[in-house]
Amino acid sequence: MDYKQSGVDIDAGNEVVRRIKGLARGTFTPGVLSELGSFGGLFRLGERGHRDPVLVASADGVGTKLRVAFMSGIHGTIGRDLVNHCVNDILVQGAQPLFFLDYLATGRLDPDVAVTIVEGLAAACRENGCALLGGETAEMPGFYADGEYDVAGFIVGSVERDRLIDGRRIVPGDVLLGLPSSGLHTNGYSLARRIVFDGLKLGVHDRVPELGATVAEVLLAPHRSYLPVIRPLLEAPRPGIKGMAHITGGGITDNLPRILPPGTEAVVRTGSWEVPPLFQWLERAGAVPREDMLRTFNMGVGLIVAVRPDEADEVIGGLRAAGEPGARVIGRIAAAPDGQVPAVRYEG
Amino acid sequence: MDYKQSGVDIDAGNEVVRRIKGLARGTFTPGVLSELGSFGGLFRLGERGHRDPVLVASADGVGTKLRVAFMSGIHGTIGRDLVNHCVNDILVQGAQPLFFLDYLATGRLDPDVAVTIVEGLAAACRENGCALLGGETAEMPGFYADGEYDVAGFIVGSVERDRLIDGRRIVPGDVLLGLPSSGLHTNGYSLARRIVFDGLKLGVHDRVPELGATVAEVLLAPHRSYLPVIRPLLEAPRPGIKGMAHITGGGITDNLPRILPPGTEAVVRTGSWEVPPLFQWLERAGAVPREDMLRTFNMGVGLIVAVRPDEADEVIGGLRAAGEPGARVIGRIAAAPDGQVPAVRYEG
Repeated sequence: MDYKQSGVDIDAGNEVVRRIKGLARGTFTPGVLSELGSFGGLFRLGERGHRDPVLVASADGVGTKLRVAFMSGIHGTIGRDLVNHCVNDILVQGAQPLFFLDYLATGRLDPDVAVTIVEGLAAACRENGCALLGGETAEMPGFYADGEYDVAGFIVGSVERDRLIDGRRIVPGDVLLGLPSSGLHTNGYSLARRIVFDGLKLGVHDRVPELGATVAEVLLAPHRSYLPVIRPLLEAPRPGIKGMAHITGGGITDNLPRILPPGTEAVVRTGSWEVPPLFQWLERAGAVPREDMLRTFNMGVGLIVAVRPDEADEVIGGLRAAGEPGARVIGRIAAAPDGQVPAVRYEG
Repeated sequence: MDYKQSGVDIDAGNEVVRRIKGLARGTFTPGVLSELGSFGGLFRLGERGHRDPVLVASADGVGTKLRVAFMSGIHGTIGRDLVNHCVNDILVQGAQPLFFLDYLATGRLDPDVAVTIVEGLAAACRENGCALLGGETAEMPGFYADGEYDVAGFIVGSVERDRLIDGRRIVPGDVLLGLPSSGLHTNGYSLARRIVFDGLKLGVHDRVPELGATVAEVLLAPHRSYLPVIRPLLEAPRPGIKGMAHITGGGITDNLPRILPPGTEAVVRTGSWEVPPLFQWLERAGAVPREDMLRTFNMGVGLIVAVRPDEADEVIGGLRAAGEPGARVIGRIAAAPDGQVPAVRYEG
């Protein structure tokens, strides 16, 4: 009995590692000191010229969006979802990415699928100026069904301590800007899949006339990175941004309060942006109460930025100049009664 | 249809997050700037007083050792396995841990199991002076069987650039020291489970007379961290350590060459240490060829340290003083023919 008979193919794993190494190498930035294959990946922080660096780290998965990848056989977009989700999670604190690592677990490793996934990771890392510094590819017989896998991402970025964004300076009167999402991003897929596949009984390659696209195209649209349009604002001499919330699982309802200081609440006008047809379609088809929609999906707003009211126009202009024409005022900060936990109040 | 009906219980998730936050807080070191719940975890590097810091990062899983946890219902040791594995992976490059993040994915979240796992993570983080800075708990209906989960870990440490250990200075004549493992650590479980459960048809709570312990006790023995015994050597004025290899999947055969420079090979004397009874038992019961044993299991050697021959005694003494009496010479570095890929040669 040897290891291969027991379900683990070290040679197949080594072959994947060899191909992944080449992809990772294409993402390397000046800070990277090692190639993959050392026990740990090495990144020299000095390259960033920080005086008082704060490292910002986040771990995330893609959730059940993966099931749409399994159903459609399209594995090239999942990597972009994962990297961009992670990039946004540290961006909201003012950090720009240094490096990313992945954990990819399968029942039986299909080298081509593994490489396709990592191609997506590597492409997104390059787009975000983030080194794919390492990762783990685990073959775990019996843990995952044939053709299935799970993938997690870990990101580390850095920010100068006095440029850290944490929402602490948010006060009543501040304005909330919403930036458009590119689709469901990576959240709400358990509900969306139930509506689309169990309720409407659509196949993954079926066309949705209301949306002018197939189910796979709609549900696999990659999570966008807000780094390219936010970066110029982070590097501006006068930082106009007081706080940012990445709208992920839990929607605006659960994510926006994470940056609100005590004594404040967020008032969001649901009529201030057009909810994209995809969300309207899901809401209608699933007869989902609006409250649940807002606590499950991003509803077309993937990032919320809190700014001083007299700086809102300037920030919107800066975003437009950076290539984001869709930012708009979607609400404001109000004073909350003493002792109330910060929350979101919706206005029609 | 709301989100809970679709299999995702946000409230149960929030409850777990509340309990995990308390555990994580107990691991916080002076560098930590945030509590969990921000989008990213924050760590101020200045606390470490580096001049030219290199960040060392690694991602890992526990592999199919998890299945022994599922079978036995013992979930408190997996966290220690994961953290210690990660700590060792960056330690071999001279880095000491700054922070750790986890990714825990289940089909349906059992709050008590999740908290038990994180208690193990938190305890091991405390022991290694490593902050549990964040993580992701993902409930993915249909991805994992009932009662099953996967867990991945991500660690970041730092080392002063001129104290980085990378094996580059290893030359023929250098001596290899082996440090004892505490069991299988986290590798070889697909083969071990097949031998024990399929071959010997033992139950997880059965007693193994040859080993004086139950199957669960033997197979769940936690992966040890080498940080406590190696740290004093890292901080010594004259670093005696030229290279270190963490013996994980692939055994000595595949891991030791990772630190060998071109033109060298490692000669390991298999008779120089006593292979622990656990490995002898598996080898016999599975009729596993010795070559496969050495490429699958650590065989009782969890860490290999390369040192100058005239410093071997001093390093062994330092390890003994730090609480590790079991370090011994297990081999040497030899010159390899031109163009040969660095490898391990075993002597009887």
